[in-house]
Amino acid sequence: MSHDPPYAIDLAGKLAGFDGHWQPRTVATFNGHDVMVVKVQGEFVWHSHDDTDDLFLVLAGRLRIELPHAVVELGPGQLFVVPRGMQHRPVADEEAHLLLIEPTGTPNTGDPATAAQRRTI
Amino acid sequence: MSHDPPYAIDLAGKLAGFDGHWQPRTVATFNGHDVMVVKVQGEFVWHSHDDTDDLFLVLAGRLRIELPHAVVELGPGQLFVVPRGMQHRPVADEEAHLLLIEPTGTPNTGDPATAAQRRTI
Repeated sequence: MSHDPPYAIDLAGKLAGFDGHWQPRTVATFNGHDVMVVKVQGEFVWHSHDDTDDLFLVLAGRLRIELPHAVVELGPGQLFVVPRGMQHRPVADEEAHLLLIEPTGTPNTGDPATAAQRRTI
Repeated sequence: MSHDPPYAIDLAGKLAGFDGHWQPRTVATFNGHDVMVVKVQGEFVWHSHDDTDDLFLVLAGRLRIELPHAVVELGPGQLFVVPRGMQHRPVADEEAHLLLIEPTGTPNTGDPATAAQRRTI
């Protein structure tokens, strides 16, 4: 998928098409990155990405990003970029819907052995 | 601004802080890219970016992206990536608010001579 087709990509519509938490779906590609939507709930694992910043944009619900010395609380329309190399743990007390952007192939846990398989929808 | 500070970036709040159309403001950086918000209204210029894809996400209002052989209509929560090298013209009949992501330094018109100066807020 080197180019996206010439139609609007509806994020809520994409999110309505699947279940499961912490399983990002790629909805577009951009400069070697995957633009993804994901449903999250509960605590993810502490991890870091040595080679990429990690962009989170909340579309619905609330997300807490725990950092070594801070906690960032995000609601709809709010974003945060975790700098590369920084340990972080995303947590959502109730289901939240996010847009994520990461280089294509980045393991979501920081470790290919435990990462979710990335699928395109 | 190599790293963003550890607090949520509220897109609507950033947009409330300035006026003017087609004048993107950088609100975060990410892997060598600027994450920007912009208010648009009317017709922009036809242009292309040879070296970068061009990501548009509508936050409020409606945007029409005219392409050489297609038109993409976008509403809130909808995105489109214009592939690098493709001529395009964004048009908004009424004011719309967008999130844009482009490599830091990309001229918004495709031409440094006519581009808006990019500012960080």
